[in-house]
Amino acid sequence: MTVPGAAINGDDAAWAADLFDQIAAMSPDTAGVSRPALSALETRVLDFLDDRARECGLEAWRDRGENSVYALPGQKDAPRYVLTGSHVDSVPQGGNFDGLAGVVASLMCLRAAAREGLALPLPVHAIAMRAEESAWFGPCYIASKVLTGSLAADEAAALHKGDGRSLLEHLSGLGVPSGPLTGGQPLADLSRIAGYLELHIEQGPLLAERGLPAAVVSGIRGNLRFRNIRVTGEAGHSGAVPRAYRRDPVMAMADLLNRLDESWSTIVQTGGDLVVTAGMVGTDPASHAMSRIPDQVGFSLDIRSQDRQTLSGMRDLLETEMEDIAARRKVSFATGPAIHTAPALMAPQIIAGLQNAMHALGMEPLTMPSGGGHDAAVFANAGVPAGMVFVRNRNGSHNPDEAMEIDDLVVGARIMLQYLMTPAQ
Amino acid sequence: MTVPGAAINGDDAAWAADLFDQIAAMSPDTAGVSRPALSALETRVLDFLDDRARECGLEAWRDRGENSVYALPGQKDAPRYVLTGSHVDSVPQGGNFDGLAGVVASLMCLRAAAREGLALPLPVHAIAMRAEESAWFGPCYIASKVLTGSLAADEAAALHKGDGRSLLEHLSGLGVPSGPLTGGQPLADLSRIAGYLELHIEQGPLLAERGLPAAVVSGIRGNLRFRNIRVTGEAGHSGAVPRAYRRDPVMAMADLLNRLDESWSTIVQTGGDLVVTAGMVGTDPASHAMSRIPDQVGFSLDIRSQDRQTLSGMRDLLETEMEDIAARRKVSFATGPAIHTAPALMAPQIIAGLQNAMHALGMEPLTMPSGGGHDAAVFANAGVPAGMVFVRNRNGSHNPDEAMEIDDLVVGARIMLQYLMTPAQ
Repeated sequence: MTVPGAAINGDDAAWAADLFDQIAAMSPDTAGVSRPALSALETRVLDFLDDRARECGLEAWRDRGENSVYALPGQKDAPRYVLTGSHVDSVPQGGNFDGLAGVVASLMCLRAAAREGLALPLPVHAIAMRAEESAWFGPCYIASKVLTGSLAADEAAALHKGDGRSLLEHLSGLGVPSGPLTGGQPLADLSRIAGYLELHIEQGPLLAERGLPAAVVSGIRGNLRFRNIRVTGEAGHSGAVPRAYRRDPVMAMADLLNRLDESWSTIVQTGGDLVVTAGMVGTDPASHAMSRIPDQVGFSLDIRSQDRQTLSGMRDLLETEMEDIAARRKVSFATGPAIHTAPALMAPQIIAGLQNAMHALGMEPLTMPSGGGHDAAVFANAGVPAGMVFVRNRNGSHNPDEAMEIDDLVVGARIMLQYLMTPAQ
Repeated sequence: MTVPGAAINGDDAAWAADLFDQIAAMSPDTAGVSRPALSALETRVLDFLDDRARECGLEAWRDRGENSVYALPGQKDAPRYVLTGSHVDSVPQGGNFDGLAGVVASLMCLRAAAREGLALPLPVHAIAMRAEESAWFGPCYIASKVLTGSLAADEAAALHKGDGRSLLEHLSGLGVPSGPLTGGQPLADLSRIAGYLELHIEQGPLLAERGLPAAVVSGIRGNLRFRNIRVTGEAGHSGAVPRAYRRDPVMAMADLLNRLDESWSTIVQTGGDLVVTAGMVGTDPASHAMSRIPDQVGFSLDIRSQDRQTLSGMRDLLETEMEDIAARRKVSFATGPAIHTAPALMAPQIIAGLQNAMHALGMEPLTMPSGGGHDAAVFANAGVPAGMVFVRNRNGSHNPDEAMEIDDLVVGARIMLQYLMTPAQ
C-alpha cells in the first residue's frame, strides 16, 4: 500500500531538475550563482516560476510583500491555509539550492497533488519569497519580516551594498506598501496561516556523514554575535619586552578563545547545544610585523544555541572571562554591539507530524537543530507554528560547491506532501 | 676624587644634542626619521659626522666597508685597538636614537679624551656603521657582517625593497670590494680588534620601569622565527557544523598559542630567559566572514632566548604541540622555513669591566639581556670579545616615539669612557 507522499514521482524529479538548471542559467556569476535580493533578476525568477506553476494547473499571484504564491485552483482565498516555501535570492557567488530547493519542493507537492487530484486536508499556499540573505542589505529574512510585521526601523533604513539606496526604498520601488511596513503591521493576515513549513538544504555535514537523505528540524539556533571584538594592549619590540611587562593582545585573544573552547566542550559533553566560531581574526596589516608585539587585534565571535539559557550563559561567561583576562594580561576588550537573534523552536505538533510522515515513508526520523537562521524562525517568533525539513547537501551553503541530489529533494518533498496529506490529529 | 669617565661634561651633552638635531633635520619623513641603508643620505650623514669629528681634533676616515671611523690623532694605524660604535641607518619612519646614540656616545668619549688629553690604555677606534636595519634589504647587520666576513651568499643577493638592485650591487656601488665579500673574507683585520663595545638605547621598558639610566648587557637573545605558519582546516557554516565535525584552524591556533604561553610562563618562573610573540595573525579578508568557519589562518612566531638550549627546547615543544593539536583538531600546520639566529653572549671580562665602571661612577650595575639583535652579536659570533651598554629609552625603538634623554646618554658614555680608561686586568 503506497502512502500519499509517494505521489511525487520521477517526472516531478525531472521537472525540478529542469527548473534548477534554467534558474541557474538566469543568474550566472564568475563562480556559482548570484540572485540579488529585491533585484530585477529576482523578479524575473519569480515570473519564470509563475509560468511554470501555471503550466502545472496551479494558480499564481503576488502577495502584498511582492512574493509569488501558488495554490491549487480555487484555494487562493481559503480562510485558513498552510504556508510552505522558502526564498529565491542567493548570496553573491552562492549555490543554486539554498532557498530555491524549498520553493521547488513546495511546487512539487502542489504539482503532484494537482496531477493526482489529491484532497489536501487544509489548503496549501506555496510561497517563493524574496530577500532572505543578509549579503545585500545587512538585515536578513526580509520578506518574512515584512509579512509578519517584524522588520525593525533600523533594518528598513539599511542601505543596499551596491547602490546605497535604503531597503525601504527598494521595497517601495517594487510596490510593497510602506505605510504598514514602517508601522510594524504584518502584510499577511497571520490568523489565516495554520502553519509554516520550509524545506531547506542542510548547511552542515551531519546528513552526509550519517548517510541519510533528510531530517526533521527541532529548532533554529539563536545566536549571539560580535562583528569585531577589539583587544588592545601595548606595542613593543618582540625581543626586548620581558614577559612581566607585556600587554599582548594576541596572547589575550588566544587565552579567551581557548577558555570559550573548553567551556563549549563541557557544554556539549553534558548534552547542551552550542557552536562557537571566530571566523575573522586579524592584526593590522598596516602596522603589524614579525618582531613587533601588536597593540591591537580584532576578531569576530558567533555563538549559537537552540537554547536561550545556554546563549545567555555564554554571554555571562564571555564577560567574566574577558574581565579576568583583561586584569591578568593588562589588556582591554571592546566588544562593540552584540547582535542577538533568539532561538526559535519548531512547533511540537509539526515536528511530530513530520516524524510520523517519515515513519509512514519507511524512514527513521532523525531530528536535528538548524545552525543557520531561516524564514521559519521569523514565522515561529511571530506566533505561527513552524516546521522544517532538512535535505542532505555536501560542502555547506553560501558557496558555489553546494551539492544536493535531486533524489534527496524528492525524499524531502515526499515527507512534506505526506505531512500535508495527513489530517490534523 | 673624580673618576676619568666623569670627564664627559655638559658641553659634550650640548654638542651631542646638536648632532642629533642636525642629523634628524637631514633625514625627515612624514613621521620620525628615515635613513635608508647604503643610501646617499646615509653617506651625507657620515660626511657630516666626519666634519664634526675633525672639528674636535679627531682623525676621520672610511674603512674598507665604507663606514666612517674616528680616532685620536696618530692612532689610526695602531696595531691593536678597541672598536666602539653602532650604526647610523634607521628603519623607515623610525626614531633618531636607534643606532645613532651609540655612534654619538663613542664620539663623546673621544671628544672628551682629546679635550682632556686622556691617555687611553688601548687606542680606541669609534665607528659609524651603515646598514644595520633589515627594513631595506631583508638581511640585517650588513656592515658588521661585511667587516667580519660573515655575510651569506643569499644575503648578498637580497634585493633592495625600493629599487630591486641587489645588496652586492649597492655595496659595490659605494666602493666596497666585492671579491673578498663574496669569498667570505673579513674586510677588517679582526686580529687588531681587542674588543667591540656598543652603546644602544634599550628597546624594551625595563630601565624606564626601574628608574635607572643605564645597564650592562649580558648577552643578545638569539631567535627562532617563522614568518607565516599556516593552519589549514575546513570551511563551514558557523551555525551548522557541530563541534565533533569541525576542523577549525582558528581554535587550533588559539590552542597552540595558549600552550606556548603556558610553557613560557613555566620557563620564566624557573629562571629561564624567553620571550614569545605572534606579531601577525590573520584569516583571509577575501573569504572570511562572521558566520563562516575559516579554512585557514596564518600567524608569525618569534621566539627569543639568550640560551641556545631554551631555543632548541622551544623548537621541539612547538613541533610536539603542533602534532598533538593537528591530531586532536583534524587540522594541519605548515610552518614554512624557520629563521634561526644564534644567541650571542657578551664577553665576561667586558661585562665585568663595564660593571666595575658603573661601580666607580657610583651606580648599581644592573645587567640584563638584549632582546633585539645588534652588530655586537655579529662581532661576538666572529670571535671578537664584545660588550654593550644599554641606555634608558621610552616607547621602544623602530618608531617615531623613541625617547632617550641626553642626560641618560651622558651616563652611558661615561660608563664607556670609564671602562676604556681602565687598564686591562
